[in-house]
Amino acid sequence: MENAHCPEQTRLLIIDTDPGVDDAMAILMAANSPEVQLLGITTVYGNVPTALATQNALRLLEMSGLRERVTVAQGAARSLKAGTDIERIADFVHGADGFGDIGLPPPQGQHLMDCSAAEFLVRSVNHHPGRVTILALAPLTNIAQALMLDPQLADKWDELVVLGGAFFTGGNVNPAAEANIFGDPDAADLVLGSTSRLRILGLDVTQKCRLSGEQLEAMQDKGKYGTFISRISQFYLNFHREWYGMDAIMLHDPTAMAAVLQPELFEWRAGAVRVACEGVTKGQTVMDASVKGFHGHHGWADRPRVRVALGVQHEAVVRLIHDRLTA
Amino acid sequence: MENAHCPEQTRLLIIDTDPGVDDAMAILMAANSPEVQLLGITTVYGNVPTALATQNALRLLEMSGLRERVTVAQGAARSLKAGTDIERIADFVHGADGFGDIGLPPPQGQHLMDCSAAEFLVRSVNHHPGRVTILALAPLTNIAQALMLDPQLADKWDELVVLGGAFFTGGNVNPAAEANIFGDPDAADLVLGSTSRLRILGLDVTQKCRLSGEQLEAMQDKGKYGTFISRISQFYLNFHREWYGMDAIMLHDPTAMAAVLQPELFEWRAGAVRVACEGVTKGQTVMDASVKGFHGHHGWADRPRVRVALGVQHEAVVRLIHDRLTA
Repeated sequence: MENAHCPEQTRLLIIDTDPGVDDAMAILMAANSPEVQLLGITTVYGNVPTALATQNALRLLEMSGLRERVTVAQGAARSLKAGTDIERIADFVHGADGFGDIGLPPPQGQHLMDCSAAEFLVRSVNHHPGRVTILALAPLTNIAQALMLDPQLADKWDELVVLGGAFFTGGNVNPAAEANIFGDPDAADLVLGSTSRLRILGLDVTQKCRLSGEQLEAMQDKGKYGTFISRISQFYLNFHREWYGMDAIMLHDPTAMAAVLQPELFEWRAGAVRVACEGVTKGQTVMDASVKGFHGHHGWADRPRVRVALGVQHEAVVRLIHDRLTA
Repeated sequence: MENAHCPEQTRLLIIDTDPGVDDAMAILMAANSPEVQLLGITTVYGNVPTALATQNALRLLEMSGLRERVTVAQGAARSLKAGTDIERIADFVHGADGFGDIGLPPPQGQHLMDCSAAEFLVRSVNHHPGRVTILALAPLTNIAQALMLDPQLADKWDELVVLGGAFFTGGNVNPAAEANIFGDPDAADLVLGSTSRLRILGLDVTQKCRLSGEQLEAMQDKGKYGTFISRISQFYLNFHREWYGMDAIMLHDPTAMAAVLQPELFEWRAGAVRVACEGVTKGQTVMDASVKGFHGHHGWADRPRVRVALGVQHEAVVRLIHDRLTA
């Protein structure tokens, strides 16, 4: 494994992702953050189909000069129980190419499939026990598959940070469900039931972290990535203008990256989480935030208590994101 | 129908209920409220089994001297899809007799079954078109049955006020579900999909409306009902002390009665509501509180927009409840 001799003090990071405008922000933040060393990118469907997610991961690594040091492993093209359904792809949010349809050229390099995303996750975590943080920015199919390959995997990762869910607020796919969890509710319920070495942050906090149209405009020419971020974000900004009536974008994925870098900017609450896997509310995340539990058995009892972000110092988070992207 | 010649200006009220300590408070508030004329009480399972709910309704009417003027109609003993299951009865909250097990004698009168709860609701609303408010304090089985008997019924009632649900807060049966909706999720989804002439208030507001142990103690000897309320509430208070670690009771049902009397004390938001009817989150209520809706079809589209209480002037509500119960 090529990154086996990185300095012991640096946190190792694998980002599981479906880039995506805000995924690009999170990945480029990671590239500009000395606290973490990016070990790999694993890809999955969501904002774009999986094969395009892989292409976009390659584009970002070429842009950041990290292509030689960072593995790209392609993951699942469909959810655990998709059957013959085509997955819901959020091209109306991110553009058909995932990067706002600004006419970017394809990546120069080819992706050579060494192993699947799940296999790469299992190998990397086992190779660096206790040192790997996984940041999951998309449907949790790859993470669930990794846990199916190695059910003890969670004991060996440093932490899994999940971007997903809507706990005490409405969803963004429908009133119940947030898009990442909606993409594979069964995988999410499996992952959230597997370990307490997991933090999850969803719309409760990420929709509070925003960049205005004016701020995006002002990022032009700033640092290595300012122009790129500003350009690919216009389609995403238009989506926010049309559907939320706001002249700003929500910084979902980079906020999750901020939670990897500075978890103290969030208010975390411990509790078991279940995911609705059936019916009209499919994909909804429900946290047990009770003080003393409930009379009688229920589906949250005996599940691991994960940490859920319910509050955020949004100004500090936005500043961190902005600074890392324009450095 | 015995109450056909009540003065035109008085609102007519039917309470669908499973008394229950806080149901007793709501019913006795109604008895002490000149703005409404109590036409009938329809009974259902929940805090107690249905037959005991009927007995307890008779007890309350005898105590208030309204027995001759108010009809009691017994309703369903099980939920729409209970099958052969026994319904969950909250005797650990209200005591085995529903009134805190203080050794009350049975009612003096017998219940003579004229018609079922659902039939009584249909007859009453049709007999007084536009004048009847229904206050539903229990699982919505009877209301669903009434709508199945007369699908236009909602156009003829003045309003249905439902106590139930947990919208942007956790449940009280489990992290997802509030007890009344959990009691018959299918009935609730049917009722909430039938009409916009409906207001619903759940744990988001009712858990903020409380009487302390000290306040309950001080109600002794005050007015017609103070001593009774204070005595039956001790078991209910002990439940709150044990499970919520608070020396106070939540005033769920009387808060709903306050919403009938003074809706302006609440902050109402319009939106479609769905109820999860399957899986681990069964009984959860989910409101569409979005500004412009969502991309693509979902289960809230084309459903009536009801009014959901998301805020409450809790001090004013508690004062109203206290004053009506001690008058």
